[in-house]
Amino acid sequence: MGPAADPDAAALDASDPLAPLRDRFVQGGDVVAYLDGNSLGRPLTRTAERLPSFVREQWGEGLIRSWDEEWMELPFTLGDALGAAALGAAPGQTIVADSTTVLLYKLMRAALTARPDRRRIVLDDDNFPTDRFLLEGIAREDGLELDVITVDRTRGVSAEQLAAVLSDDTALVVLSHVAYRSGHLADMRELTRLAQESGALVLWDLCHSAGVVPTELDAWGVDLAVGCSYKYLNGGPGAPAFAYVRHELQGTIEQPIQGWMGAADVFAMAETYRPADGMRRFLSGTPPVLGMQPIVDMVELVAEAGIDAIRAKSVALTEYTIRLVDEVLAPLGVAVASPRDSDERGSHVTVTHPRFREVTAALWKRGVIPDFRSPDGLRIGLSPLSTSFAEVRLGIDAIRDELDLASRRDDAATVG
Amino acid sequence: MGPAADPDAAALDASDPLAPLRDRFVQGGDVVAYLDGNSLGRPLTRTAERLPSFVREQWGEGLIRSWDEEWMELPFTLGDALGAAALGAAPGQTIVADSTTVLLYKLMRAALTARPDRRRIVLDDDNFPTDRFLLEGIAREDGLELDVITVDRTRGVSAEQLAAVLSDDTALVVLSHVAYRSGHLADMRELTRLAQESGALVLWDLCHSAGVVPTELDAWGVDLAVGCSYKYLNGGPGAPAFAYVRHELQGTIEQPIQGWMGAADVFAMAETYRPADGMRRFLSGTPPVLGMQPIVDMVELVAEAGIDAIRAKSVALTEYTIRLVDEVLAPLGVAVASPRDSDERGSHVTVTHPRFREVTAALWKRGVIPDFRSPDGLRIGLSPLSTSFAEVRLGIDAIRDELDLASRRDDAATVG
Repeated sequence: MGPAADPDAAALDASDPLAPLRDRFVQGGDVVAYLDGNSLGRPLTRTAERLPSFVREQWGEGLIRSWDEEWMELPFTLGDALGAAALGAAPGQTIVADSTTVLLYKLMRAALTARPDRRRIVLDDDNFPTDRFLLEGIAREDGLELDVITVDRTRGVSAEQLAAVLSDDTALVVLSHVAYRSGHLADMRELTRLAQESGALVLWDLCHSAGVVPTELDAWGVDLAVGCSYKYLNGGPGAPAFAYVRHELQGTIEQPIQGWMGAADVFAMAETYRPADGMRRFLSGTPPVLGMQPIVDMVELVAEAGIDAIRAKSVALTEYTIRLVDEVLAPLGVAVASPRDSDERGSHVTVTHPRFREVTAALWKRGVIPDFRSPDGLRIGLSPLSTSFAEVRLGIDAIRDELDLASRRDDAATVG
Repeated sequence: MGPAADPDAAALDASDPLAPLRDRFVQGGDVVAYLDGNSLGRPLTRTAERLPSFVREQWGEGLIRSWDEEWMELPFTLGDALGAAALGAAPGQTIVADSTTVLLYKLMRAALTARPDRRRIVLDDDNFPTDRFLLEGIAREDGLELDVITVDRTRGVSAEQLAAVLSDDTALVVLSHVAYRSGHLADMRELTRLAQESGALVLWDLCHSAGVVPTELDAWGVDLAVGCSYKYLNGGPGAPAFAYVRHELQGTIEQPIQGWMGAADVFAMAETYRPADGMRRFLSGTPPVLGMQPIVDMVELVAEAGIDAIRAKSVALTEYTIRLVDEVLAPLGVAVASPRDSDERGSHVTVTHPRFREVTAALWKRGVIPDFRSPDGLRIGLSPLSTSFAEVRLGIDAIRDELDLASRRDDAATVG
């Protein structure tokens, strides 16, 4: 028996103002419910259509001249567009470059140059491994101490926890806006204020929120932020990342990967490195222009849809998901491991069950694609522009069916 | 008067065994002579044709499953293919990742972990700015000393010069295989041997040779190498770079940008970073899969054509260029600033004249595209698979015409 038609999902889709935009994305193949946009967003049809002309014209006919015409400025123009569409960042503070890991490394190291006399870095034990691994290495090399906050994974770092570890020796605080496991949404404004009160700089990892949860980086006085573009910004596998550096900080901090693209006069081929003014100093190598093309398309769509409308649909999708989990999956032993309050939740819902490892494999085979996180978590990622309520319904029903099947296999084995 | 038909160029093209492969590249637009493949190689038609299906199928239908099927291994499979086709590197020693700048930074820092008691780094003053800038920053941070060899720009670093600065305090030697300005081709085998005799590690920058001058990294005992893919590997603007680490070194050196993709168990989301065995430890962020696609196509073509045949045509192209410069441009005051011995020359020829800045602008307008290097250099880049002898002839004639025009403008101004 397949999943029953559900008037509830149909009604939600019918009244969704963003529903028509779903047709802008590539659909096809065997996938019937894609619930992993928080790992890899779907491509836009426009991107598939536009890349051949990019290759033939901008690259193939413009050749080296395209650097002068457009490409040299693309890290900044695309960064500014992203900042305006999704981050609450005025122009001149955001670049698109490198990868999340490399940009985090550069801004972590840069931040420390602004607080040379302070010896401690604050992070939490639920931050993404890359963030923790990077700081572990930097602290070891520079002889710094790490203050690691142990968090309740469904609740994130609280203001009380942060206040308890901050001191006048704290140079830097590194936190994730949305936790990659639970989907917990941090109070960026309050935690930033607290950290800055102690004289520390704050670096926010926006990987799991950029493009789906609005931020006001300027208004909230955020110092530094880095995020990835291949999740809710649909940039494609391993797409370049972005970095934000508050305007007032740009002249006072320096990153360590001193390449020609970050120099004050790029083509002077100077004898010694002098960092450029402004955001250029945070570049290192030649900008990844081909890799940026899908992001160009998606940032335009985010601007067209409006980040607040995207957030509203994201909340509706996660609320609907939790309601269905409670109704359909809780009786089978599935628990919600994400915050139930929408104000404290990003755009994915994590549920747990001891059999989710085998269930995920079975779901993938039938074209229902969430992702599994060891040991027992299933992350249901809800990308508002490309995901329908009907997909959620279908996905939850499929999880129920596969849990039923797994349980019947157990019974059969016992009887046998 | 346009350029006259030249039987010499026509004869060379007619007898060129690689000539048919030129049709594999995107041609079109206003460009009649592209002489800058050493800055940005032309795209392959196959790449333009294949990208839409990559986006629709591997990304759009495979979605997150494509990581398991192909993408996670792409840095290694593509690196191995490149190593076999062009570098003389057995499998398991080459990756494609990041950018040239970031990979240089990682391998420079990694090399220093293997020689912790040595305090000196050798480089030369004609190396590409990024290489020098990076070492300047690393030396400052780590309190190391730089030994900068001053080179005659048409001759490169000699064995005598290198021997004179090496000592038992030298940790690392960083050299370019082909000099970006003069096109000088270093004796990689001999310089590597010399450096290693003193106990130092050697890092070769292959940006201006990869894909056009064969190397035997394994046979020559090279320690480390980094190169770019957007020149003679036609990877597109800002394409990912590659890195080679000799097998025996891999377990003993560590790079500082500790991301999840370099960890021993990527999806364990471990509490602490433990570097993977083998080349994975040199990865940091998520591999730039879209950006790697053009390189996949070009490495296949290099393998098909054969790197020795490519080098043979490269030598023929640069020899023909120098002959024409001597015949046609020398009378106008143009000098050859590249080595005249083919064994000491890569695949570009640099010529100098005080008016080349204005001449370059005029050439670009008529679709003849070399590149200008301040103050008076014109680099004529010869990408063997996509450049014909006729293009060289046409380019040299255009340079002559524009120098003539500039000179006539002078006369008119004097008369006026």
